[in-house]
Amino acid sequence: MTGELAALRSALTTTDVDGYLIDAAGDEPEQRYVSGFSAPDPFQTLVTDDGVHLLVSGLEYGRARSEADADSVTNTAAYDAQDLRDEYGPREGRLRTIEAFLADHDVSSIAVPQHCPIGTADGLRDLGVDVTVEADDVVGEIRATKSGAEIDAIHETQAANQRAMAVAEGLIAAAEVRDGVLYHEGEPLTSERVTTEIEIALLREGCALDETIVACGADAADPHDRGSGPLEAGESIVIDIFPRDKETGYFGDMTRTFVRGQPSDELKRRYDATDEAFEAALDAIEPGVTGDEVHGIVCDVIEDAGYATLRSDPETDTGYIHGTGHGVGLDIHEGPRLSFGGEELEPGHVVTVEPGIYDPAVGGVRIEDLVVVTEDGYENLTDYPIAIEPEDRR
Amino acid sequence: MTGELAALRSALTTTDVDGYLIDAAGDEPEQRYVSGFSAPDPFQTLVTDDGVHLLVSGLEYGRARSEADADSVTNTAAYDAQDLRDEYGPREGRLRTIEAFLADHDVSSIAVPQHCPIGTADGLRDLGVDVTVEADDVVGEIRATKSGAEIDAIHETQAANQRAMAVAEGLIAAAEVRDGVLYHEGEPLTSERVTTEIEIALLREGCALDETIVACGADAADPHDRGSGPLEAGESIVIDIFPRDKETGYFGDMTRTFVRGQPSDELKRRYDATDEAFEAALDAIEPGVTGDEVHGIVCDVIEDAGYATLRSDPETDTGYIHGTGHGVGLDIHEGPRLSFGGEELEPGHVVTVEPGIYDPAVGGVRIEDLVVVTEDGYENLTDYPIAIEPEDRR
Repeated sequence: MTGELAALRSALTTTDVDGYLIDAAGDEPEQRYVSGFSAPDPFQTLVTDDGVHLLVSGLEYGRARSEADADSVTNTAAYDAQDLRDEYGPREGRLRTIEAFLADHDVSSIAVPQHCPIGTADGLRDLGVDVTVEADDVVGEIRATKSGAEIDAIHETQAANQRAMAVAEGLIAAAEVRDGVLYHEGEPLTSERVTTEIEIALLREGCALDETIVACGADAADPHDRGSGPLEAGESIVIDIFPRDKETGYFGDMTRTFVRGQPSDELKRRYDATDEAFEAALDAIEPGVTGDEVHGIVCDVIEDAGYATLRSDPETDTGYIHGTGHGVGLDIHEGPRLSFGGEELEPGHVVTVEPGIYDPAVGGVRIEDLVVVTEDGYENLTDYPIAIEPEDRR
Repeated sequence: MTGELAALRSALTTTDVDGYLIDAAGDEPEQRYVSGFSAPDPFQTLVTDDGVHLLVSGLEYGRARSEADADSVTNTAAYDAQDLRDEYGPREGRLRTIEAFLADHDVSSIAVPQHCPIGTADGLRDLGVDVTVEADDVVGEIRATKSGAEIDAIHETQAANQRAMAVAEGLIAAAEVRDGVLYHEGEPLTSERVTTEIEIALLREGCALDETIVACGADAADPHDRGSGPLEAGESIVIDIFPRDKETGYFGDMTRTFVRGQPSDELKRRYDATDEAFEAALDAIEPGVTGDEVHGIVCDVIEDAGYATLRSDPETDTGYIHGTGHGVGLDIHEGPRLSFGGEELEPGHVVTVEPGIYDPAVGGVRIEDLVVVTEDGYENLTDYPIAIEPEDRR
């Protein structure tokens, strides 16, 4: 971590604080990134000039000492956490334990991330610690630029993701169509069934996921609808899968849209416009271009095709109603953003590219790959065909 | 929500603030509880005298209006969020949008939960909003007492959990033992394999889970170790499963410990002491008793059996090294706590009871059920045998 955190250390020097404190759940992405440790319960990570220091309960102490990427690990018992809790109650006792940890490292002023709980920040202030918000998200910027090992981890999750997509596409391709509904083994093929098969495929790959989108028809026109019920022929089926490797913690992310049978001319037109916007975005990706510019290029294509965007109409609920992409790493949504105000792209940024066009009356279309920005353009971490007609690739 | 939130409203009156603001991810448990809405991205929920009000992006607006348990839902576009972001940048633009939402509801002073991000709290303060921390966790207390519908939801998740436990126990019971290692279909039966089969069983039940513990031998002696590698005969295998129903969001939680073949006398002794402590804790559960007292009873039994507890030695890393239980609901760890300083139990509290004894040299043992406190005792929401020797119950 030492090299990666240099920018954070110089920010601490500039703002004249003694340390940077992360008080967060053990699976919170920034916590995991800086500490190199993952735990079910919250713990504290302190970054100072002389290293990365962890404060964990006795329950995590042994594992933290062997697994964390830290210069020191301290058990809360070393600061008599139990006595403090008995004397001051659980809330103030916890704060006084953190205060003792800070004092032990000669820290009396800290910067905290924007996501730091106000209960901790104001509580430490009440105990005399000087707390300021690190408003520039320096760690977020550090995290946005991936190392080779991080890119490999994301690439691996994305490869598992592709095998899960093949399971889903295969189910749709192999389904029988009766009265406009897809059937699998005599039962209607539902969003829920396809989702389950995707998730089982990913579990077997060592990945976990909270949510998967398999949305058909009007459901697919709401980009955040998970989808439900029988899949229908002639309607668009949007499949968006964003698994996390359980071991490394890194996410993948991809979306494909399929239509079994004949799509309407209008649906096909929207698919082609989305595909064109997708290709235009990829063509634009290189160091120096901003996420704002890439998003603008996608809006150009979609507006030229005759559809609304949030740029042409900020209140529209049909057309192109989301950003073009986001960074992916230990969090599914992190920097940089490929949308209004999006940052300048740099080598090592890993971003999704995912334009779409939506209307409940027609359905939804979205196409999404995951790419890494390189010195002279990008490398696509996704290797999966883009076609509206499903094929059985299992 | 109106009835349940009465205690929050009177706390707002007492502290003389206009509203209570939750700024959190859409799957954060308090956010989900108060808003009745779940979304992948952060949004804001404002509780005032006249209702529950949501502020969501255009992407969530349609679904929030139909799904949320709210008196009003506003699209950020109504406050010109995009113009504010263009003028002030993403961070301050977001804060100014929230400020406009508060002003629209005549709110100039707010209480926020302890987990409120300091970036939001201090940012709103800079814009002239009076922000205080709600330090008593009133919403946490409201959430700790479950309604009938919530208890049913938890009971249902726990029933799915039991079916997954039967899959795991069945695999262990049916395994062949060769050279002290468990085999399944000719391959060593590993923690990872059992975990995968548990997770697949739960997916088929409509449940999701981030982590599962199937830990054998020395791994099982670390209560937070997920376990890895081949399972061994004569060693304790701790299986701890805590799934969340994807639809309702409510968790279940249970643990069993199995030994294939002959446990050592010492391991058997620890199993029996754990079981005795478990039964003693259950016997104690009724309204009026405190979580602290229940935990004390468990410590009594375990200390009497000759093992250390965090009460007899706060720095011990063997023996009984965690609390006796925690509330379960939309969060896997919520109030009340059955541990040092734990609150008085009340009807409707849903808590785990999970004593254990740990030592890397011997292994780990933990037994856990999930119960609801009733008017005159408790009802066990778990219906799964407790036995050290595994049986195939599939």
